[in-house]
Formats: sequence, structure tokens, C-alpha cells
Amino acid sequence: MTNTLILLRHGQSDWNEKNLFTGWVDVRLTEQGRSEAARAGELLAESGVLPDVLHTSVLSRAIQTANLALDSADRLWIPVRRSWRLNERHYGALQGLDKAETLQKYGEEQFMEWRRSFDTPPPPLDDSSEWSQANDPRYVGIDGEIPRTECLKDVIERMIPYWENAIVPDLNAGKTVLVTAHGNSLRALVKHLEGISDEDIAGLNIPTGMPLVYEIDENGAAVEKGRYLDPEAAAAGAAAVAAQGKQG
Amino acid sequence: MTNTLILLRHGQSDWNEKNLFTGWVDVRLTEQGRSEAARAGELLAESGVLPDVLHTSVLSRAIQTANLALDSADRLWIPVRRSWRLNERHYGALQGLDKAETLQKYGEEQFMEWRRSFDTPPPPLDDSSEWSQANDPRYVGIDGEIPRTECLKDVIERMIPYWENAIVPDLNAGKTVLVTAHGNSLRALVKHLEGISDEDIAGLNIPTGMPLVYEIDENGAAVEKGRYLDPEAAAAGAAAVAAQGKQG
Repeated sequence: MTNTLILLRHGQSDWNEKNLFTGWVDVRLTEQGRSEAARAGELLAESGVLPDVLHTSVLSRAIQTANLALDSADRLWIPVRRSWRLNERHYGALQGLDKAETLQKYGEEQFMEWRRSFDTPPPPLDDSSEWSQANDPRYVGIDGEIPRTECLKDVIERMIPYWENAIVPDLNAGKTVLVTAHGNSLRALVKHLEGISDEDIAGLNIPTGMPLVYEIDENGAAVEKGRYLDPEAAAAGAAAVAAQGKQG
Repeated sequence: MTNTLILLRHGQSDWNEKNLFTGWVDVRLTEQGRSEAARAGELLAESGVLPDVLHTSVLSRAIQTANLALDSADRLWIPVRRSWRLNERHYGALQGLDKAETLQKYGEEQFMEWRRSFDTPPPPLDDSSEWSQANDPRYVGIDGEIPRTECLKDVIERMIPYWENAIVPDLNAGKTVLVTAHGNSLRALVKHLEGISDEDIAGLNIPTGMPLVYEIDENGAAVEKGRYLDPEAAAAGAAAVAAQGKQG
């Protein structure tokens, strides 16, 4: 007996478009991002893969994506849970910086290490920065301390407890679960589900707005690799992510 | 010590515009309804009355209203609870009928009794009707049996337990609570909060898209009458509802 998990990465945001490091900065979807989300919901409806419960991060771009996708799938009414543990990777002191300028200033080696290193985070973001979340009301009273920077390893460590304690129980209750989240929180989950190594995960690109479906057994393990509902569009999307270096 | 409750009636829906009896039929907002919702969120932000938790019905027009209002108030990330107990009054066999045709067919006395009687529901809707919710997946496994018709008294009887068991506890936890719902589920709640008689409630018109704010004590009682954040617009809106006979 397996249950169905749907992963959905939010579509284009204002800062994707402007080529800025985003992380936990709470930017909104662009019009293109909104269209991607609505199309994802149509794909769910057409495929008959209909979520019974939604889990999202607490970042607006993932919540907007979920709201638009559920509206076009006619599932606005399902229960919702949100957690900071599904947030994008915190990008530390890089948040708010232009990616091209950062590459020029620090050189390609440092730049790629910050972006792709499994266990080396960028320098921490100062609480006084305008891009800090230290005083954001959405993180008051959360279970744990909010990060000031993260590498992918850190994301895995804070995401997996939520997977095990909140998402797997919903799956085991027989529900089809939709998770709308971010490039790196979803990479963390896919790494866990598919047993991808610390080295190989750097090469995994998750396309935006493409529902990725897993069958999950009662132990929370994926019975096979994930499948995209629209494999052709997903392959093109992943190639675009890889080419543009947009991951994160 | 009091806590803040915000009531918000959804804006114009497709069927308001077409002048059809809606009830539990799951229609969407029109463009005008979407603008009303976004404006309501701006009012919350401008007034600094910021919700910590959202309660909605399971009907799409109330959920869309909440999503749009929270987006413009920058509060998309707050926790959400949904319940059928906040749904619009079930309009029985009138669901899906044209209001003008119904008036002509049954005469004004019968028409007004169906619309305004406190304790006489319309004839029940047959489960085989295309406007029935008997097989709607959103009502599978709910606490209680879904109605086939309702008068306002019935709405009060199914709504108050949710008020007492779900909303008041959130208020007593110190949270500012936003309830996005419908003309008649909100009339039921306002009747309860303001102690309006069974006779006088027929004359109460709640405008669409206008945040109505109460201070609630620890016993779940309102310490004074509700106040609209934009009283002038609310008075005009209530007069419009009364004139157009749109309530419900």
C-alpha cells in the first residue's frame, strides 16, 4: 500500500527575474510565475492526481503558487499546513546581492562553492541587514532558532524532521499530499527520497511549476524514482534551470 | 483583556452577477469581487489590524477572498483553518434558480419568506440535482451530516459550535482572528455577538469586502458593537446589499 506525494517548486519570482540572491527574502511571483502555478494545477486536474492536504513553506511565493495551483485544480478547500522548515535555503550574506556582480567580485570558484557546496554555507547575514528575517513576525515562536545562513546540509537537517513528523503521517493516513516549496528544500527532500549522494546532488535541477509525483510506502520511502506529470516540459525546464544557474 | 476578531464577507461572485441563488454551489469571484478582496487586505494593513490566524468556509469564493486579502496585507503565511460550518446558508431547492424568475413564479410573499424567514427553510434540494453537494469530496468525513436546505436558524445551530470550539480558543490564545465567510454565516455570528433578535436580524445587511472588527472578551462576548474599518464605504455597501436584495 503506497500513498501519493506531489512536489511543486514555485515559479518565477520578482528576484529570479532581477537575478538577485533571494533565500528567505519574501518576494512575490511574477506574472510568468503565476501562469506556471495555474498550469501546474491544470496538470493535476487533467492527471487526476488530486491533493487532499497541502504543506507549504511560510514564504509568499510558495503560498501564492499553492493558492493558484489549487484554484485551477478546484481544490482550494483542502486543509493547509505551513512550516518554515520547508523554506528555501537561507542564503546568508548573499541575500539581496546581484548574482552577476557577486560572481565578478568574488570569482567563479568562490561563487560556485557558495552555490553548490554541500556543507559550506555563505557568511551569515547580519541581523541589522534590510534583508534579515530576525524581526519578521512570521518566525516569532517557531520551533527552533531561525538560521542566518545555510548550506544544503543545513536545509536537510531542518527539513527532514518536518517530513517525518508532519508529512509522512498525512501520507500514512491515506492522503495525497501536495508540498509547494523551493529549489533547495525540494532538492533536500528528493535527495532523501532517491538516496542521492552528497556529491551528485549538486547536479540535480528541479524545474519550476512542474508537479513531481512519488509513491511513498508506510515507512516514508519512495518505491521508485519520481515522475513528472509532463515529462517533456519538465526536462526542458530542468535544462533551463541548469543553463541559467537559477537553482537557489 | 480583549482580543480582536475581524469578519470579512466575500465580494461579488459569478452568480451574484447572474442573479442566481447560490448557497453551497461553489462559484468563483468575479474581477470586481477580487478587487474588493484585495482592497479589504489593504484596509487591514493601513489600519494595522493584522490577523494571526485565518478561519474560512470550504467554499472557493471565501477562500479566494482570504487569499487575496492576505496577499495585499502581506500575511499570506498565517495558519489557516477551514470548516463547512462557516459555509453560506444552504439554499435548498432554490440553488441554481434565477432570483427574478423565482419571484415571478412563486410571488413576493413566498419569495420573501424563503429569503428572510428566520426558521422556515426552502424545500430541500434533491441529491440527484446538478446543484447538490451530496457527492462533493470536500464534505466526505465531515463532523455531522451535510444539510439539504437551511433557514438562518439552522445556520446558527451549525455555526455556533465552531465559533465556540475553534475560533474563541484562538482568540483566547491572544491571536487576532480573521473569519472570511458569507452573508448568512456572518449574519448568524453578528446576531450572536450583538444579541440581535430573531425578528430584527432580517434587517441586518453585511456589506461585501468590508472588514468588520470586534473586541472579544475571554468569554467569547463582544465588548461593544462591531466597527467597520471604512465606515463610509461600509454604509454605502450595506445600503447597496439592501437595495439589490443580494443577501444570501
